[in-house]
Amino acid sequence: MQTLTVDLGDRSYPIYIGADLLAKAELLLPHIRGRQVCIVTNTTLAPLYLEPLRRALAPLQADVVTLPDGEQHKDWQTLNRIFDALLQARHNRSTTLIALGGGVVGDMTGFAAACYQRGVDFIQLPTTLLAQVDSSVGGKTGINHPLGKNMIGAFYQPNCVVADTAALASLPDKELSAGLAEVIKYGLIADRDFFSWLETNMAALLQRDQAALVYAIERSCRIKAGVVAADEREGGIRAILNLGHTFGHAIETALGYGAWLHGEAVAAGMCMAADLSRRMGWLDAAEVQRIAALLQVARLPTRSPPQLTVQRYLSLMAVDKKVLDGQLRLVLLEALGRARVSADIPHEAVVSALRHCGAAA
Amino acid sequence: MQTLTVDLGDRSYPIYIGADLLAKAELLLPHIRGRQVCIVTNTTLAPLYLEPLRRALAPLQADVVTLPDGEQHKDWQTLNRIFDALLQARHNRSTTLIALGGGVVGDMTGFAAACYQRGVDFIQLPTTLLAQVDSSVGGKTGINHPLGKNMIGAFYQPNCVVADTAALASLPDKELSAGLAEVIKYGLIADRDFFSWLETNMAALLQRDQAALVYAIERSCRIKAGVVAADEREGGIRAILNLGHTFGHAIETALGYGAWLHGEAVAAGMCMAADLSRRMGWLDAAEVQRIAALLQVARLPTRSPPQLTVQRYLSLMAVDKKVLDGQLRLVLLEALGRARVSADIPHEAVVSALRHCGAAA
Repeated sequence: MQTLTVDLGDRSYPIYIGADLLAKAELLLPHIRGRQVCIVTNTTLAPLYLEPLRRALAPLQADVVTLPDGEQHKDWQTLNRIFDALLQARHNRSTTLIALGGGVVGDMTGFAAACYQRGVDFIQLPTTLLAQVDSSVGGKTGINHPLGKNMIGAFYQPNCVVADTAALASLPDKELSAGLAEVIKYGLIADRDFFSWLETNMAALLQRDQAALVYAIERSCRIKAGVVAADEREGGIRAILNLGHTFGHAIETALGYGAWLHGEAVAAGMCMAADLSRRMGWLDAAEVQRIAALLQVARLPTRSPPQLTVQRYLSLMAVDKKVLDGQLRLVLLEALGRARVSADIPHEAVVSALRHCGAAA
Repeated sequence: MQTLTVDLGDRSYPIYIGADLLAKAELLLPHIRGRQVCIVTNTTLAPLYLEPLRRALAPLQADVVTLPDGEQHKDWQTLNRIFDALLQARHNRSTTLIALGGGVVGDMTGFAAACYQRGVDFIQLPTTLLAQVDSSVGGKTGINHPLGKNMIGAFYQPNCVVADTAALASLPDKELSAGLAEVIKYGLIADRDFFSWLETNMAALLQRDQAALVYAIERSCRIKAGVVAADEREGGIRAILNLGHTFGHAIETALGYGAWLHGEAVAAGMCMAADLSRRMGWLDAAEVQRIAALLQVARLPTRSPPQLTVQRYLSLMAVDKKVLDGQLRLVLLEALGRARVSADIPHEAVVSALRHCGAAA
């Protein structure tokens, strides 16, 4: 087992990474201060992992909320089911919410913990690769609004995160690949050597080799934790974690949440960002090609959905959270392994990159 | 004009108290960092104060959300209208929300600011006495849930608060009295001299004498600010601000939100707490009588609604937020001007105090 500490002063917390950790009472119980817990999970994961987890928590009052599975349920109505359950079972301020699931369960449970009685404890047990390398570090919680993804939420840190690589055995291939998109992102924005390691080890990761997964998760979380520690509330440098995300969110919104997985949209978005970085003179064509090639090996899309027009991208990107005072800011690559936030990108370069990556005229 | 600073480190903010401050651009503009603001108000206040405020904010993009008036609208559906408006008008992360109204508008606007894009700036312009002395200090924001008041929310501080005593001219008598309940509370929990000042000056306050109001608001905010600075997230001492509130919330919940005003319920609750303090041997009968007499002069209830039974109180108080690990904690008075939180109160004493104050058997 690897342990990594996310360093945020009095909100610091550990991430435990390894195989078969999910129901280890000795990892969980030290992070629970009250006598009540509420496990929030979904209909896909409950049959797989709920019972061992409940056994581990046997000394406590453990209530369970089972949500419908999927990004389309990341809304207020579903969130409110958590509040209903907590109030019906009279959970008090010293309760602990436990998120057992992927990013959607984690984001909603974290936001519920941030808001319930103005803030209670929570623990994340991410069961998808995406959640293990992304949602479980950084404290971003929230829900979607019909007019935009993740528009309502809070920065709220868990007491601990347990990333169980054995849980990835049950993950559909598509979701494994979606998680690998974020793993590749960490190499691109901050660690050229890790990018090279991924080129060498992508086959092992796709075969769900436990040691390779533990290494990739640990290195990804370490990179993200370093960036988040420097900028907890996303005032500056943290924005580099959004490489590919402004384009990706436009794809997700245009197609409707869930049509493409988040990681798939980010993969195509990173290709757009890479192409735009080449147009700015920062990457060469061979590097852009290496990026697309690695994403393809990871079975990820590298082009826009064909039905999306350039105009639709530009319109959707204008409402994205990353727009500050009306000016479009994008995360680009200065080099393979080094990201920067750029506000002064020629409009024509954005249009050309979108066209080059398959957006319709 | 009086200026008071609420000292919370990098979340410190000023409270400006005085007559005719509401639409002073020179007070507001230094606290707005972006080019967008969204004024949230209600149908009662908009006709009175919206236009002068909009004129003061003329250089900015100023959108307006007008909510229905009343505690029964302090729910998710109404909150969501703020998010709808912000997204429709494309407000970005540097927007500022401005709450123009009483506690309900302030609580909802503050919570919307805490959640919109995971946190944007906000300013409070409280227009009721209750909001000026209570909701505008302490950072408590939130909405109600059908199973409990203020159960969903956040601790979130404003950039500044402007308490305009001239705005109290339009306040209904009942609401002025409800605000005075909280003012009296500050004397009871922390300042015996202020309690005596209130006995002397209650007539002036009821006549809305501006100088008396500025003094009472400033002293109330100072007491609350001192308590909040010592305990921002309500881990301990801050609980004394809840004198009368556990009983009061039970009354509000039992009668349905809005049947009694919050301050009216708190007034009756403070009489229950005072009677219980006498049973603990901390107050004498004359002091309990002084408290009831001052509340009566302020035209506030001092007894339970007759239809509420002792059992109903006990049941409702068990789900109140102030219950930690199942143990009922109540704020009582050790002396006139000094509060304490007590966890070891004999059950029979609580029952007797409720009965004595008019609860049904």
